[in-house]
Amino acid sequence: MALIVQKFGGSSVADAEGIRRVARRIAQTKRAGNDVVAIVSAMGDTTDDLIDLANEVTKKPPAREMDILLTAGERISMALLAMAVNDLGIEAHAYTGQQAGLKTDNKYGRASIVGVIPERIVRTIKSGAVAIVAGFQGVNVETNDVTTLGRGGSDTTAVAFAAALNADACEIYTDVDGVFSADPRVVPAARQIKVMTYEETLELAAHGAKVLHLRAVEFARRYKVPLHVRSSFSDKEGTWIVDENSTKINATEAPAVSGVSHDRSQGKVSIVGVSDAPGSASKIFAIVAQADGNIDMIVQNTSLTNPGISNISFTVPSEQVEDVVAALEAHKEDIGFREIQTVKSIGILSIVGEGMRSHTGISARLFDTLAKEGVNIDMISTSEIRISVVVDPERLEEAARAVHSAFGLDSQLGEAVVYGGTGR
Amino acid sequence: MALIVQKFGGSSVADAEGIRRVARRIAQTKRAGNDVVAIVSAMGDTTDDLIDLANEVTKKPPAREMDILLTAGERISMALLAMAVNDLGIEAHAYTGQQAGLKTDNKYGRASIVGVIPERIVRTIKSGAVAIVAGFQGVNVETNDVTTLGRGGSDTTAVAFAAALNADACEIYTDVDGVFSADPRVVPAARQIKVMTYEETLELAAHGAKVLHLRAVEFARRYKVPLHVRSSFSDKEGTWIVDENSTKINATEAPAVSGVSHDRSQGKVSIVGVSDAPGSASKIFAIVAQADGNIDMIVQNTSLTNPGISNISFTVPSEQVEDVVAALEAHKEDIGFREIQTVKSIGILSIVGEGMRSHTGISARLFDTLAKEGVNIDMISTSEIRISVVVDPERLEEAARAVHSAFGLDSQLGEAVVYGGTGR
Repeated sequence: MALIVQKFGGSSVADAEGIRRVARRIAQTKRAGNDVVAIVSAMGDTTDDLIDLANEVTKKPPAREMDILLTAGERISMALLAMAVNDLGIEAHAYTGQQAGLKTDNKYGRASIVGVIPERIVRTIKSGAVAIVAGFQGVNVETNDVTTLGRGGSDTTAVAFAAALNADACEIYTDVDGVFSADPRVVPAARQIKVMTYEETLELAAHGAKVLHLRAVEFARRYKVPLHVRSSFSDKEGTWIVDENSTKINATEAPAVSGVSHDRSQGKVSIVGVSDAPGSASKIFAIVAQADGNIDMIVQNTSLTNPGISNISFTVPSEQVEDVVAALEAHKEDIGFREIQTVKSIGILSIVGEGMRSHTGISARLFDTLAKEGVNIDMISTSEIRISVVVDPERLEEAARAVHSAFGLDSQLGEAVVYGGTGR
Repeated sequence: MALIVQKFGGSSVADAEGIRRVARRIAQTKRAGNDVVAIVSAMGDTTDDLIDLANEVTKKPPAREMDILLTAGERISMALLAMAVNDLGIEAHAYTGQQAGLKTDNKYGRASIVGVIPERIVRTIKSGAVAIVAGFQGVNVETNDVTTLGRGGSDTTAVAFAAALNADACEIYTDVDGVFSADPRVVPAARQIKVMTYEETLELAAHGAKVLHLRAVEFARRYKVPLHVRSSFSDKEGTWIVDENSTKINATEAPAVSGVSHDRSQGKVSIVGVSDAPGSASKIFAIVAQADGNIDMIVQNTSLTNPGISNISFTVPSEQVEDVVAALEAHKEDIGFREIQTVKSIGILSIVGEGMRSHTGISARLFDTLAKEGVNIDMISTSEIRISVVVDPERLEEAARAVHSAFGLDSQLGEAVVYGGTGR
């Protein structure tokens, strides 16, 4: 008998019919002989509606009360889902984050999990019943007040319970069949990935792919929780996300590249004429960090014609460009530079694959493909399993298609690609 | 400095504007130098909407999950109200029934309060802040699960906290100016009662007047909590409901009759030809009780022409008549009677007043007034401070007007009577 944690997002439980469909899925898993713990988000737009209500009442809602308000959303969906599962003849009980034993710090609105003590959940599944748990919420261990986990909180809740219960799998239900080798809206030949590692998932998610929230994947990696991203509309196997030593991975001939992601949410800041003295770069990045700038790529080059002077370029989310530049200009004297140039919107293309650790010639093939397409490369950054290039955002989508094809990722003739949105 | 518990019903907090209006009322009370604990119901139709959702999902919602679902309503309103009070520059914190320390038994949907341990509320008001508490809900002391108190639960919550905190007053806000000497929709000359006893309130509420829920008034009587029923739309004094020994009562010349109520929700069951043997009546009422029949009045008369045979009539809510008759017919042999006659809908007129304890001639004046109006009396029942008569429901309203006038209750010329609905 396996223990399965299943997570259902707000779009899966948007109305009574959705709730009944999810209940049938839970019942089916239970009847197949598994123990089931289901994590559920608030119904459809409930959370947004509650935020609107708060904004009607006050311009500055207190954080503690905001969390009390928002947690009403999962309270409703978890109770209804438990009712729907009971209606199918399977005993089910609903628990708030607090009742389920999810302990957090005191940072309302973006609390971190400090522990999971799932006593009631263990008792419930031992008794043969299904446990339904509210996602996105926990309890502040200092005050016993309710907290919310912030963006991606329900995914993280599911992984946390899967880890605490030592579950055999944590199924993340969505409205697509799994994780794709590229965004099918841009690369129609994209195919569903059968299995991938946590690292690949993290790299893809961090570079534009709407896969899962980074936080949930990091949690899964830390506790080696096997994730299974799959569709709530079909019984097909989805995408498994596992440890690199998993037998699932070994059973597969890993391709050099698993996926191609593209990102047009970043901008570029170039600081020109920085005096090439020790400490210049560290000053710059301390200031950017203070301004909450979220840096992805950095390139520094020293001028050949003017030794002792260098240029430093980095990427940050487009909406942060203005604040970061203002912060740097405010410290112009201290840092010592000539001027700042910015590009509000750049294109970033990334290829990701565990295979890069062993395969050679990957970067050559990437650059060659882009050259043949006439796409110019502005910046390059790499990790052990990723190569990212900054390109003209106008050329980003054709570049993605060409690269996807060049690395042999295009789906076979006749392979159905189902894609209905991001599901996030 | 006084401690005031204020209770606001769902219609007072039906939307953001209502919530802001209630917040201003709380702020005004606090700024006047009082400590304030506010009990709040769910917004407008929220509870009904949640019940509808449950019914869409299943025909038989489990009771525990139903309570989890319904308590989401007050969770939303209490958080929003706390935000709105904070917005006015007064610190306020919201607490669920559980956090506020309201302990109940395990009867989901209609839990009884077993105790109130308002530690966090005391700490909050001692710190100078306002405490906002969710009405209608508590925590099952056996399992730590949330429970709801059933109908009138928010009124009862307010009274329970007023008792536990030894509050100076428990203000019940509604959309009318207070309690009236009769229903102004039927008796236009009805006037607002300034002060009345718990017993009077209980008798009126039990006999058709939509005043307050019986349970809340009984709780108030037991713990001698002064109730103040008043309008959330004006600053006028409302109706005080107090102990008979209160100085408020002594300061007033109590009239013989305080109020007139009418009730058309009852039906009549007459069992004809019951053998007048010891135990017949007890058999009958045991069977009615088993069928959940809620008896109000009982009349038994022995046939003069046929000694040893009696007729027994009683009143129950109209919707219970059918079930009660079926239960009695099923035991016809055992009880021994000839036949059952029913009237689905009867009229009951009641007059209530502490003055009845001392004044004489009250019943004579009642019967005389009805006789002059040509209204026939079918049954009579009395308590120390109440006389009720069953009359033709077609004549009920004119009878109420005539009796109201005969006991000198009609409002003076020029006295404004404001009435906007029942507010329950």
